[in-house]
Amino acid sequence: MGDFNQSVILEAIRQSAEGLSRIELAAATGLSAQTVTNITRRLLDGGYIREAERTINGPGKPRVTLRLIADSRFAVGVHLDPTLMTFVLLDLSGAVVRRTSVRTPTVAPEQIVEAMASSVESLISGSGVTRERIAGIGLAAPGPLDPKLGTVIDPPKLLGWHRVPLRGALEEATGLPVVLEKDTTAAAVGELWTRQESADDSFVFVYIGTGIGASLVRYGEAVKGSTRNVGEVGHIIVNPDGPVCSCGYRGCVEVVCTPQAIVESAERLGVFTEAQEDTDAATIDARFTELCERAAAGDALAASALQQAAADMSVLVAVLTNILDVDRVVFGGPFWSRLSDVYLREIPDLLDRASATRAVRTLPVHGTVVGDDVGAVGAGCAVLDVVLSPRASDLLLEG
Amino acid sequence: MGDFNQSVILEAIRQSAEGLSRIELAAATGLSAQTVTNITRRLLDGGYIREAERTINGPGKPRVTLRLIADSRFAVGVHLDPTLMTFVLLDLSGAVVRRTSVRTPTVAPEQIVEAMASSVESLISGSGVTRERIAGIGLAAPGPLDPKLGTVIDPPKLLGWHRVPLRGALEEATGLPVVLEKDTTAAAVGELWTRQESADDSFVFVYIGTGIGASLVRYGEAVKGSTRNVGEVGHIIVNPDGPVCSCGYRGCVEVVCTPQAIVESAERLGVFTEAQEDTDAATIDARFTELCERAAAGDALAASALQQAAADMSVLVAVLTNILDVDRVVFGGPFWSRLSDVYLREIPDLLDRASATRAVRTLPVHGTVVGDDVGAVGAGCAVLDVVLSPRASDLLLEG
Repeated sequence: MGDFNQSVILEAIRQSAEGLSRIELAAATGLSAQTVTNITRRLLDGGYIREAERTINGPGKPRVTLRLIADSRFAVGVHLDPTLMTFVLLDLSGAVVRRTSVRTPTVAPEQIVEAMASSVESLISGSGVTRERIAGIGLAAPGPLDPKLGTVIDPPKLLGWHRVPLRGALEEATGLPVVLEKDTTAAAVGELWTRQESADDSFVFVYIGTGIGASLVRYGEAVKGSTRNVGEVGHIIVNPDGPVCSCGYRGCVEVVCTPQAIVESAERLGVFTEAQEDTDAATIDARFTELCERAAAGDALAASALQQAAADMSVLVAVLTNILDVDRVVFGGPFWSRLSDVYLREIPDLLDRASATRAVRTLPVHGTVVGDDVGAVGAGCAVLDVVLSPRASDLLLEG
Repeated sequence: MGDFNQSVILEAIRQSAEGLSRIELAAATGLSAQTVTNITRRLLDGGYIREAERTINGPGKPRVTLRLIADSRFAVGVHLDPTLMTFVLLDLSGAVVRRTSVRTPTVAPEQIVEAMASSVESLISGSGVTRERIAGIGLAAPGPLDPKLGTVIDPPKLLGWHRVPLRGALEEATGLPVVLEKDTTAAAVGELWTRQESADDSFVFVYIGTGIGASLVRYGEAVKGSTRNVGEVGHIIVNPDGPVCSCGYRGCVEVVCTPQAIVESAERLGVFTEAQEDTDAATIDARFTELCERAAAGDALAASALQQAAADMSVLVAVLTNILDVDRVVFGGPFWSRLSDVYLREIPDLLDRASATRAVRTLPVHGTVVGDDVGAVGAGCAVLDVVLSPRASDLLLEG
């Protein structure tokens, strides 16, 4: 139980903005004064925490406030999206101390890993953080994953990525331990770390990237699932009048809710005068931006394409919340900020009408508090989780 | 932490077929020898456990095996289904010591509660168990529920049941504390108690009653959700060519997967020569039995109706397992045994083809080990959980 109790103490100190004394730690964790003293001595020796001010509070020994040393350990978060690779450096408190992003090159997987490793090196060297303080790299990638092999199985829009041993390749290229996480789950972890709600917080995170995924937080913890593939929602039917999907049905999430599907639906409505030349990730990204800008500027056709997309998305959110019975819904992912106005206006009412628990409560719908970097931030937090958190199941880093 | 540790110890003794000594309990729970001694003394004094045989195992004091006194506490489990009310009496080990069932009368809710209370009284008095050993009543009812008010909101096929304060009415009629649980969640709890798999067991339970519901077990515990309404799956679209649903879409679970929907689809196929006269619960139940018997006897039309039902159900199961990423699928509920042959033959392959984690693993599909009484047994187990289990969130019984 030693390591478990140590991470409980470290997490309690991290979550306290003001720091905590040993007596307060004992009260907060239920551990004995002797255990708290032993563990805090180890954390002080390891350089994770420091003794800050002394408080005299009536008679007896003054209390010493213990605080996290935020720059004692760092983690790199990488988000591999088919359009953009995002890199963040987080300190032990979860704060982003440096970030960078580059367009994902359309080259072979091996070369993408090389480019990724080189960006990680620049991020670290540019920050001035010494290498032995880097706990590891969290890598968020599109699912489904094979967590045992550390591979992504068949990511959409990343051609040639069938079963690429991503985790091993990045470990080899950087010499750092790598935690591979689904982008959707990483986003939920980032949201959790940043928001710091109560311990029984529960929400579904709907991730809008090149694909659409969901992830789940229950009792303040990201639920990862038996194979770390929670939240594969691509083939849920949300609009039976929609286009035909590769699975044979019409109107699956994959063919109506993704940015590419929304762009194509806008094209069918005649939003764009010129034909689309290409379906690569960068072209779709640009068209999607144009669509959202036109809708915001009052273009009725563009607005109706986004309204239909919001209606389709509300069906997915109803399926998820009716199954999962969480407290709230959070949207995020690289395309979220462009959709947030329309979705936050349209979805809450549609969801309420379709909610099985409508008679009992109204489900709040929010956007992420982290912003577009949520996948990369969450991937870095997943590494810090291994360093900090009282979650035995997350002890992945053996390095 | 006293009560928590006490229930950890009691649960460890319950789960051990052979009983456990104090030293084995300390090893199994991580508690100190002194704590184990103190808690087991309280449990002995309370009459929950007894000292059984002494084992001499090398030098030193002989070890005393502690065993559960199964008849020290009992719980009543009631399952309110629109067709049938089932009543079980469970001892502290979870074994069914007495059962009875009656057809649900088609009368006003108040009279149904009266009939229920009278059956509970007969069950208890017929068993010879003294009333002070009855810990309470677990009541499984169709969701969605309003757990704060203890009401069922709008159960299908129970006319006039809008917001009936079921929990309070049954408490008043019997003088016993009542835990109200969704039938689907109760079924998962019953499965968990009976199967006693490893602590990290995770499965989705698909419940086939008058309605279709799902429930979820993760880390060996039933997930109940923010409003205790996990698993409302009625409006997930599984067959876009199916009949129109009250929600406006075609082919929701509610209009293609329920026993009534399957009977109606068989009628459209011409399985039955005579027209159906009534759609009350008893008539549907009888027709459903006839359909399944005909299919088993080789009637091709009847078989094709059930095959279509299995295909539709496989779409639901794929949605659930792709979202939830559990280890396996368990079917049960009052209509399950009639469907099991066809469903266990048809669904595994269909599910595999639609599984997002197909490249990583094959999902096992099983029927419940508890049988048709799983809802009632699970409701009783939910009461025993309050007595036994180390789950602070379940402390509902204040009586």
